[in-house]
Amino acid sequence: MIMGDRGTGKSTTVRSLVDLLPEIQVVAGDPYNSDPQDPEAMGMEVRESITKGKELTVVLTKINMVDLPLGATEDRVCGTIDIEKALTEGVKAFEPGLLAKANRGILYVDEVNLLDDHLVDVLLDSAASGWNTVEREGISISHPARFILIGSGNPEEGELRPQLLDRFGMHAQVGTVRDAELRVKIVEERARFDRNPKEFRSSYMAEQEKLQQQIGAARACLGSVQIDHDLKVKISKVCAELNVDGLRGDIVTNRAAKALASLKGKDKVSAEDIATVIPNCLRHRLRKDPLESIDSGLLVIEKFYEVFS
Amino acid sequence: MIMGDRGTGKSTTVRSLVDLLPEIQVVAGDPYNSDPQDPEAMGMEVRESITKGKELTVVLTKINMVDLPLGATEDRVCGTIDIEKALTEGVKAFEPGLLAKANRGILYVDEVNLLDDHLVDVLLDSAASGWNTVEREGISISHPARFILIGSGNPEEGELRPQLLDRFGMHAQVGTVRDAELRVKIVEERARFDRNPKEFRSSYMAEQEKLQQQIGAARACLGSVQIDHDLKVKISKVCAELNVDGLRGDIVTNRAAKALASLKGKDKVSAEDIATVIPNCLRHRLRKDPLESIDSGLLVIEKFYEVFS
Amino acid sequence: MIMGDRGTGKSTTVRSLVDLLPEIQVVAGDPYNSDPQDPEAMGMEVRESITKGKELTVVLTKINMVDLPLGATEDRVCGTIDIEKALTEGVKAFEPGLLAKANRGILYVDEVNLLDDHLVDVLLDSAASGWNTVEREGISISHPARFILIGSGNPEEGELRPQLLDRFGMHAQVGTVRDAELRVKIVEERARFDRNPKEFRSSYMAEQEKLQQQIGAARACLGSVQIDHDLKVKISKVCAELNVDGLRGDIVTNRAAKALASLKGKDKVSAEDIATVIPNCLRHRLRKDPLESIDSGLLVIEKFYEVFS
Amino acid sequence: MIMGDRGTGKSTTVRSLVDLLPEIQVVAGDPYNSDPQDPEAMGMEVRESITKGKELTVVLTKINMVDLPLGATEDRVCGTIDIEKALTEGVKAFEPGLLAKANRGILYVDEVNLLDDHLVDVLLDSAASGWNTVEREGISISHPARFILIGSGNPEEGELRPQLLDRFGMHAQVGTVRDAELRVKIVEERARFDRNPKEFRSSYMAEQEKLQQQIGAARACLGSVQIDHDLKVKISKVCAELNVDGLRGDIVTNRAAKALASLKGKDKVSAEDIATVIPNCLRHRLRKDPLESIDSGLLVIEKFYEVFS
Amino acid sequence: MIMGDRGTGKSTTVRSLVDLLPEIQVVAGDPYNSDPQDPEAMGMEVRESITKGKELTVVLTKINMVDLPLGATEDRVCGTIDIEKALTEGVKAFEPGLLAKANRGILYVDEVNLLDDHLVDVLLDSAASGWNTVEREGISISHPARFILIGSGNPEEGELRPQLLDRFGMHAQVGTVRDAELRVKIVEERARFDRNPKEFRSSYMAEQEKLQQQIGAARACLGSVQIDHDLKVKISKVCAELNVDGLRGDIVTNRAAKALASLKGKDKVSAEDIATVIPNCLRHRLRKDPLESIDSGLLVIEKFYEVFS
Amino acid sequence: MIMGDRGTGKSTTVRSLVDLLPEIQVVAGDPYNSDPQDPEAMGMEVRESITKGKELTVVLTKINMVDLPLGATEDRVCGTIDIEKALTEGVKAFEPGLLAKANRGILYVDEVNLLDDHLVDVLLDSAASGWNTVEREGISISHPARFILIGSGNPEEGELRPQLLDRFGMHAQVGTVRDAELRVKIVEERARFDRNPKEFRSSYMAEQEKLQQQIGAARACLGSVQIDHDLKVKISKVCAELNVDGLRGDIVTNRAAKALASLKGKDKVSAEDIATVIPNCLRHRLRKDPLESIDSGLLVIEKFYEVFS
Repeated sequence: MIMGDRGTGKSTTVRSLVDLLPEIQVVAGDPYNSDPQDPEAMGMEVRESITKGKELTVVLTKINMVDLPLGATEDRVCGTIDIEKALTEGVKAFEPGLLAKANRGILYVDEVNLLDDHLVDVLLDSAASGWNTVEREGISISHPARFILIGSGNPEEGELRPQLLDRFGMHAQVGTVRDAELRVKIVEERARFDRNPKEFRSSYMAEQEKLQQQIGAARACLGSVQIDHDLKVKISKVCAELNVDGLRGDIVTNRAAKALASLKGKDKVSAEDIATVIPNCLRHRLRKDPLESIDSGLLVIEKFYEVFS
Repeated sequence: MIMGDRGTGKSTTVRSLVDLLPEIQVVAGDPYNSDPQDPEAMGMEVRESITKGKELTVVLTKINMVDLPLGATEDRVCGTIDIEKALTEGVKAFEPGLLAKANRGILYVDEVNLLDDHLVDVLLDSAASGWNTVEREGISISHPARFILIGSGNPEEGELRPQLLDRFGMHAQVGTVRDAELRVKIVEERARFDRNPKEFRSSYMAEQEKLQQQIGAARACLGSVQIDHDLKVKISKVCAELNVDGLRGDIVTNRAAKALASLKGKDKVSAEDIATVIPNCLRHRLRKDPLESIDSGLLVIEKFYEVFS
Repeated sequence: MIMGDRGTGKSTTVRSLVDLLPEIQVVAGDPYNSDPQDPEAMGMEVRESITKGKELTVVLTKINMVDLPLGATEDRVCGTIDIEKALTEGVKAFEPGLLAKANRGILYVDEVNLLDDHLVDVLLDSAASGWNTVEREGISISHPARFILIGSGNPEEGELRPQLLDRFGMHAQVGTVRDAELRVKIVEERARFDRNPKEFRSSYMAEQEKLQQQIGAARACLGSVQIDHDLKVKISKVCAELNVDGLRGDIVTNRAAKALASLKGKDKVSAEDIATVIPNCLRHRLRKDPLESIDSGLLVIEKFYEVFS
Repeated sequence: MIMGDRGTGKSTTVRSLVDLLPEIQVVAGDPYNSDPQDPEAMGMEVRESITKGKELTVVLTKINMVDLPLGATEDRVCGTIDIEKALTEGVKAFEPGLLAKANRGILYVDEVNLLDDHLVDVLLDSAASGWNTVEREGISISHPARFILIGSGNPEEGELRPQLLDRFGMHAQVGTVRDAELRVKIVEERARFDRNPKEFRSSYMAEQEKLQQQIGAARACLGSVQIDHDLKVKISKVCAELNVDGLRGDIVTNRAAKALASLKGKDKVSAEDIATVIPNCLRHRLRKDPLESIDSGLLVIEKFYEVFS
Repeated sequence: MIMGDRGTGKSTTVRSLVDLLPEIQVVAGDPYNSDPQDPEAMGMEVRESITKGKELTVVLTKINMVDLPLGATEDRVCGTIDIEKALTEGVKAFEPGLLAKANRGILYVDEVNLLDDHLVDVLLDSAASGWNTVEREGISISHPARFILIGSGNPEEGELRPQLLDRFGMHAQVGTVRDAELRVKIVEERARFDRNPKEFRSSYMAEQEKLQQQIGAARACLGSVQIDHDLKVKISKVCAELNVDGLRGDIVTNRAAKALASLKGKDKVSAEDIATVIPNCLRHRLRKDPLESIDSGLLVIEKFYEVFS
Repeated sequence: MIMGDRGTGKSTTVRSLVDLLPEIQVVAGDPYNSDPQDPEAMGMEVRESITKGKELTVVLTKINMVDLPLGATEDRVCGTIDIEKALTEGVKAFEPGLLAKANRGILYVDEVNLLDDHLVDVLLDSAASGWNTVEREGISISHPARFILIGSGNPEEGELRPQLLDRFGMHAQVGTVRDAELRVKIVEERARFDRNPKEFRSSYMAEQEKLQQQIGAARACLGSVQIDHDLKVKISKVCAELNVDGLRGDIVTNRAAKALASLKGKDKVSAEDIATVIPNCLRHRLRKDPLESIDSGLLVIEKFYEVFS
């Protein structure tokens, strides 16, 4: 979840993630981007084809970045079952929705705070379970829907219900650059892009490829990263003393710290790694004190230093 | 009814109940999970088959845990009658709903405080009478709908109308663990589950089976558990002095105390048993004092000690 | 009209009335429960049959207790005319509604204060006139709809408009029993019922039959009960001094006092009879003083003693 | 327009007007109750028949008393044009509404203050012009709609917009009888009616016939009743000094005073006649002073005595 | 725009304008009242006929006075295009609306302040441009719609948005006559009319014809009326000092003063002419001061004397 | 974006832009006004024709000025896909909307502050990307939609959401002329136009042509206009110190200053150029201080002098 002032490039940043993440192998023409190896990430048609021993055509492709439009209906998101067709022709009557398209990719919801609560709920359920289940008049169809859910919004236009906010893993805040030289630099980069988009892109190609490889390596090593029991207790202490409801905060902080360590190429989490990720993991889980104007992230980092030193 | 902070595992706990309750015998393929022995828990088709002397196939199965989605319509919940079909083909025109599926099982309503009042009413009526009756244009169809109704919700998102709240038997409140070591333990258990769900489950198998047998035994003995007249009077005194409207509070406390004694393997209720259950039985039946921030459960237990000592 | 706290057995009491009232003779299979003797309580089909000299099958049956569901539409309540059918096939195109079913019986509306004002209006009109008239596109169909209208509700969920309230004859208020021994007695009776409903019912059979006969006798004698002119003037004085709008209060009190005297087996109304019924007859006709928390019934009885002594 | 407490017999009084007004001659079977003599009160079919020299069957009948139900649509009130039919078969495609039925009779609207403003507007327009015009897709049909419009309502349920109120000619207020003996008398009359409606009606027959003849005579003489210029000026002075907007108040008071004089069998209006009618003619035309609780009628009569003495 | 108390004859006055304005020549049977001479005021069918050299039948007729009913839809006002028909049969598929009927006449909107803002917008657009354009699915049809737009309303029922108000040229206010003798005179005139409408009308015939000729003459000379530069500057000074937004106020005052001078038979505008028209031209263009209860017209005239003396 | 008082000629000014901008070459009959040279501004049909080597008819035409009506639906704006047709006949099933018509022209939205937020969003997206993409049930069609988006409105009728406001490049404010002589001049010009529109237009022909050429020249040279790094830093400093969110303000100010310099025939931006454009570029990007009544533009210019001197 990314909240921030308008014009700070939130949408642009999220959209560029697609270019950073490694390409994936998918079954050609499959609406669920099925993984030809992992049965947990296959649509039913692909699984059926495998059962029947059919040869699958596999292609290497960038992951999908699916944009959820503000006015989308639940049918558009989850897919629909054509009951009449289903009764006569069976399974094919399912019309996959955006969640199918987003499988193994990114689902991006701009202005998530303006979205209908019910739809946010549906998204979070799918993101959590990795499956999307559509039920209508007794017919029930499921397909894998594992995706990275990213929401963005402008805090001036209202917040999500705390209940929903809590279910987003991390919560970043972005602000506007205040330094004039840096602003000019960005303005000039933009002018350079406007003049010649192709040249602009190629000038950053090398840097981008390096980052891609770094991410790929980190993903591979993530399973073997360790975190000391002592650090875990301290994390839980921070959460408990900040009155964070439930344990989602503890769990996410552990995971994020491991991911950061892995990205740095280490196999053990340090307190410094935790310090980096903990504000984004807990910021949105603090109870709002309406009289308090201080950013919740600062409260988290303060408590961190109190507990960890 | 379970109310509590987000992230405290309310939903997970309720969902796990299915594994604790003993399996039941049902007529195979019957949409009402008809009990082959008890005519009061049979759907009409099964009763008809018995009348006609047909042999029934019986299977042993886990009880159903039916999840009521927030946006469910009354048709989806209660079932629908296809009038046109009914007029030409008779009884089969009934399309059973979630209440049929929940017969002899559990009906779970997450965020019950966000549900339409009317639907809550329908649920409570079925839960109370054990039957679901659908009427449309003069055609009326009933089927057994005995189920355990469990609602959960987050108190920050609003309460139910007192009228509805009163019809829930018991009302538990759950909070977040504050002890850091315990939190780490939970986080680790979760990580262990994430790493290997199968192994995690099998490690708790024995404990779970023991609990299952304990519940089975308690159910069998429940009928013979006694409660002293003196204790009954004291329970009613607590209710009367707390200004609990109606007698549902008295009735539920008697039942819950007997159930607890039975679970402990005793055949007589003690004051201690009552002390354990009475806050959950009465908490939601007290009139709210808007200026009072103290938990209603504490008021109940205070009054309990005043009356019972 | 019965208003009272939740859990005080309002609905249960009303439902049991059916067993207390004497059985009636109806024309078999008639949707209006037509009385084979009284043309004013016959549906048009029955009247037609009599005119044609057809033999009617008569059955003795309990009166109908019709439950008006909260979400009922006007069509469901009053019945509908199938215009197309009517134009081609005539009168049979009327599909009787709940008012037809309630003819000569009881119409019970739980949570009447949550019902749509318009529908309450329709009910009161039918209850007052004894006829239900449905008009659509120039076709008009009437059928007898004489029934006892009973509404119940919880005062905490809002009152009816005074306009509608005034049209209910009597208005009872019920509260929760505060005496612990009595509460235990009720709890035990309930437990006894839960254990063996049949036995429970048969234990009260004799008492119930006695009451039935008493009601039957009272009904027969009602016409000959007298009320002194002096008492009538005093009743009207109470009404006038309490600023009761209109004369419905006077009329209902006279009738109720006569009915009570008749039930007691007397042929003359005493001041005591009036004292018993007058709070229920006038309570809901007093103008509400928003600052006054005292029950209106007490104001009525106070005024009664002032006038009658 | 009649406003008054509930239970004061407003509706009953209006309904009884039908029996007081003289019977009228109408063309048999005509939906507009066409007057066989007056072309201004004829439907188009009748006028056509006359043009064609057809013989008309004339019947003597009571005037119609049309009840406007609260939920009536504009189509139901004004009638509808079946466009498709109109294009192929011409004029007959008009389905007359309640305004047609009310022609030459009474249109009664109970709870007029709860009616949709737009519909009240339509009614007042017809009542004022004596014609109802329905236009749809270029087809326009008019028929006579001269009727006496009577509205009634309970002031506690809100008033009409002043704009609409002003267009009602007169505005009566009725209250509850406070005298106990009189109340008993009414209660006894009601009981007498309940016991034997036929006998009750016949006991008032003579009185009613006398009143009918009186009204008939008054109607015949109305045209020749005079009112002195001096009295007219005083009426206008009362209106002007009461700040009555527009001149409808002046016009109506003149007319009502003449009608009253005529009913008394006089051919000249006296100040006393004016005193009798002026409160009902002006009461609803005074600007409301929200702080003033005094009845507007009293203000009118006060001003009357100030001007006329 | 005319605003005023109810019952002051606003509608009647507007309706009588038709009799004052000179008759016009129109092409017989044309739905747009096409002027046989002026191509700018012709419907397309007439223009086509002329192009084809067809002979047109011309009739002399009163101008149309079109009443816009409150509930009118945009389709009814602007006309509709029957797309299907248009695609197969071409231009004739346009069904002209009220704006067509009002061409070269008067469009009268009673209770304009209760009209939907959007519709007022449409009316003002047509009135300003003299054309009505209907566009649907790519087909676009225009026809002349030059009319005098008159709105009336009661200020107690709310005002128009300033944005819309500003687009009405002039804004008159009417009040109730306070003089009793004058009131009696009006009442008597009305009674005279009620007794014999024909006679009443003929008694004013001569006066009306004189007025008609005066208007005709004034219209002919309007183009040659002059206004001194000095007076123009003073008008603009009044507008500027009254903080009137935009220049519509200046333009309208110039025009209205010229029209008045012309009606008086003069060829030059005097300060007195301006004094007469300026309150109606500017009154509704002043910013409302919510604390100021003084009529805006007085503020205008005050400023006028300040600037012109 | 232009905000201003009513009657200040906002709409008229925008509409006249069409006459100032140079004519463009378009493919005859093409609904997207495709540029025969630039593939980025071609509709798919034209591109297809070129691919197939077809000869295109090219015409020189004024740019389109498309008026977005307030009640326009998204379908009307973006175009619609006829799914059924699409499935059978392919691409031609797209019905272009207003965005297609506006390609290479001007899209004008009067009263933009009353427009549905969602539609404003759609417009800004198209204006930003230069493409309009319509997606329905899996079919996706794109066409070029490069246009100048101009919104106007009256600030008294409410503002846009800051989020949307920020996406308009520049924001001008217009007021009413206060000088009487100038007002008279405008009134006279208007009168001159009313008298003879053709003559009026031809009297300004020369001036208008000069302006056209100036704009044409400026467009050609825009690419080579330079802006000093020092000035860029100062612009960003102004933005940063005014707390403008994001960098859109910086980017737009740079562009506008270059455009102005080019219009003046210079090849280098001066501080003076920036001073001229910066209030319109930043005014609407300042956070509103509800207590501050000063115009935001003045705050911008104040800060400008502080930074630039």
